[in-house]
Amino acid sequence: MLQFEEAKGLLKKQVQLIQEIESVPLADAVGRILAEDGCALVDQPPFPRSPLDGYAVRAEDTLGASKDSPKSLRVIGKIYAGMVLDGQIHHGEAVRIMTGAPIPSGADTVIRQENTDYGKEQVQVYEELCAFDNYCPQGEDYKTGDILLKKRTILDGVSIALLASLGKEQIKVYRKPRIAIISTGDEVVLPGQKLLPGKIYDSNLYYLYGRLLELGIKPVFACHCGDNPQKMANIIREQATKADLIISTGGVSVGEKDIMHEVIQTLNAKKLFWRVDMKPGAPTLAAKYQGVPVICLSGNPFGAAANFELLVRPMIEELTGHCRWNMEKKQAVMETDYSKGGVRRFIRGYYEDGKVMIPKGNLASGVLSSMLGCNCLIEITPEQCGVKKGDLVWVYLL
Amino acid sequence: MLQFEEAKGLLKKQVQLIQEIESVPLADAVGRILAEDGCALVDQPPFPRSPLDGYAVRAEDTLGASKDSPKSLRVIGKIYAGMVLDGQIHHGEAVRIMTGAPIPSGADTVIRQENTDYGKEQVQVYEELCAFDNYCPQGEDYKTGDILLKKRTILDGVSIALLASLGKEQIKVYRKPRIAIISTGDEVVLPGQKLLPGKIYDSNLYYLYGRLLELGIKPVFACHCGDNPQKMANIIREQATKADLIISTGGVSVGEKDIMHEVIQTLNAKKLFWRVDMKPGAPTLAAKYQGVPVICLSGNPFGAAANFELLVRPMIEELTGHCRWNMEKKQAVMETDYSKGGVRRFIRGYYEDGKVMIPKGNLASGVLSSMLGCNCLIEITPEQCGVKKGDLVWVYLL
Repeated sequence: MLQFEEAKGLLKKQVQLIQEIESVPLADAVGRILAEDGCALVDQPPFPRSPLDGYAVRAEDTLGASKDSPKSLRVIGKIYAGMVLDGQIHHGEAVRIMTGAPIPSGADTVIRQENTDYGKEQVQVYEELCAFDNYCPQGEDYKTGDILLKKRTILDGVSIALLASLGKEQIKVYRKPRIAIISTGDEVVLPGQKLLPGKIYDSNLYYLYGRLLELGIKPVFACHCGDNPQKMANIIREQATKADLIISTGGVSVGEKDIMHEVIQTLNAKKLFWRVDMKPGAPTLAAKYQGVPVICLSGNPFGAAANFELLVRPMIEELTGHCRWNMEKKQAVMETDYSKGGVRRFIRGYYEDGKVMIPKGNLASGVLSSMLGCNCLIEITPEQCGVKKGDLVWVYLL
Repeated sequence: MLQFEEAKGLLKKQVQLIQEIESVPLADAVGRILAEDGCALVDQPPFPRSPLDGYAVRAEDTLGASKDSPKSLRVIGKIYAGMVLDGQIHHGEAVRIMTGAPIPSGADTVIRQENTDYGKEQVQVYEELCAFDNYCPQGEDYKTGDILLKKRTILDGVSIALLASLGKEQIKVYRKPRIAIISTGDEVVLPGQKLLPGKIYDSNLYYLYGRLLELGIKPVFACHCGDNPQKMANIIREQATKADLIISTGGVSVGEKDIMHEVIQTLNAKKLFWRVDMKPGAPTLAAKYQGVPVICLSGNPFGAAANFELLVRPMIEELTGHCRWNMEKKQAVMETDYSKGGVRRFIRGYYEDGKVMIPKGNLASGVLSSMLGCNCLIEITPEQCGVKKGDLVWVYLL
């Protein structure tokens, strides 16, 4: 039986980094992956800029100025933000200037208006300044040619704002991952339908759908399929023409209705592995069909959930080129005991500031409710034979 | 001048918790706020369930069974997942059962098929089990009447899956916050347009838009408005009929083109405050018009950004009833020195595991690029007069 790390490594090799590029409006690009360098074509700001409302002057003309001994300068013009002044400032001259306006040529500082008499033709200045006081130099934020954002950056609010400051309205991004999800099982009915005896509602499909949405990926296809191998094979045939990755739940064990083995055979897909030496989710089955990996998770709610996180997310990291889609692994100190051992186990937990605790409630593979509020999976190795409060463990952050 | 905490407190009082409820398909509810209790109407599972493929039996009938001394039981039927068996198991009987199927009445355990001869009419069992071994009891996950999710929970992947297991297809959620954003300034042009001399591209509008999207809130309105008080007043008049909150950037200082003061007067809006004793973003102006708070941020990129995070996000917390929309405040140890003091300052930083560092690069209010990769704002109080490596500071996580 494959070890967890082997299974993960094998699955990661089945997917390829997405290279296709599309152009989207900048405002829609939050969460997308940049497919070009964000390179500055102009300095920012493109001119020396006034950081306040006042008078642009030559610092040498303010030498010795104070409230008691003002210096008088001739006001030769007025500039609001968005305007430019023709000409330049000479000795003894000032220009009325507003925040954000370009400091005119010849001036090297701006006197705050509160330190003047607000003069219109002639202004009295009450303050001595040095050159480049109250002066935002051209290129203060960045300079022409600076690469502000590297290709493959995930775009967040700050990077969107920076790209806007570069003047970008459309931006090149890599296309989104295309993931198809299918739940199986005759016992499973979709929410909203009547629950007949022996049936349960489909939570696995919604777990996968909801978690992918949380991760910023809207599945391209989601459906439930009964235990009909031909029908399931047809769904996979169809989705393999579109998706980067197909995920199913259920039908992977050894029973007579564990259809996924037959589906893989029917499709003549290449089986990669069946069974991984881990709990939950040991019967995970993986195959490749028409170049597309098909990963078939346990039908047990916690088994499907844990193996989506532990085995599928590393594949999404490979698709996108970003560790953000994988789980961060950290060491933590156990706050609670856990007695089961014998196999590599992953149990739900809550991590905070280097410590991790196991929630109260039933931790069985069929139980989903105790996963509420959890933010990690705790790994218990076979060698550990359970862990005690104070022991160091590895946790995988959800 | 108002202190930061006072300004924040005053702003929080201006918004009211959203009470309007709408019904959405469960699959679209990720990130939404639940407006009903998620209450179990049936046990989960609704019946005792087989966790494996094998034979449902009475434990007492397996007493002493082993490979060498098998017990023979009569197979009276077969159940797949999704089916139910009419009748019940008596002494000496077994039912062939698959994973997920209801354990028939009379049986109290399931023998794993690998520990049998897979018999069809008569089965030899090789293992002695106790009652309730390999047995998932009815209600193992949750019981009828359990409240799994409380009203006002933010729905994540796990809670969506749980609601699905309850059979919910449509779900009641509170409506989304409605936020309008407007940037001002004649010097500002939208990305995609030609950059004439004296102009800069609009990054503030994109910062607000991008950050709100990151926080899961799509602004209901976004535009740029030149320095035209009448036009700006009209935009606010219109948006105040629809939005919970209006945010603008620019035009809040003391210059001749700082139109927001005039806009507030024109609208006859109630001015709440102008100027907060903090850097950046001191000239923040706040008003209330037709019951809708209008918060006017600095036009400086970092000023607008920091005050959006520090002053606007607490308002979104009040709107939604969730601290998730506010910034988490933590204590951290400085890894770098910072020398400026004299006023309450918020500087961009990177926090990890109890430590915080200030990025290299220009930290001026007009500079956005050094905010890339930052994940917090560091508060430097006036009393601190700067901080040294090793000092304790408060950080606000972005």
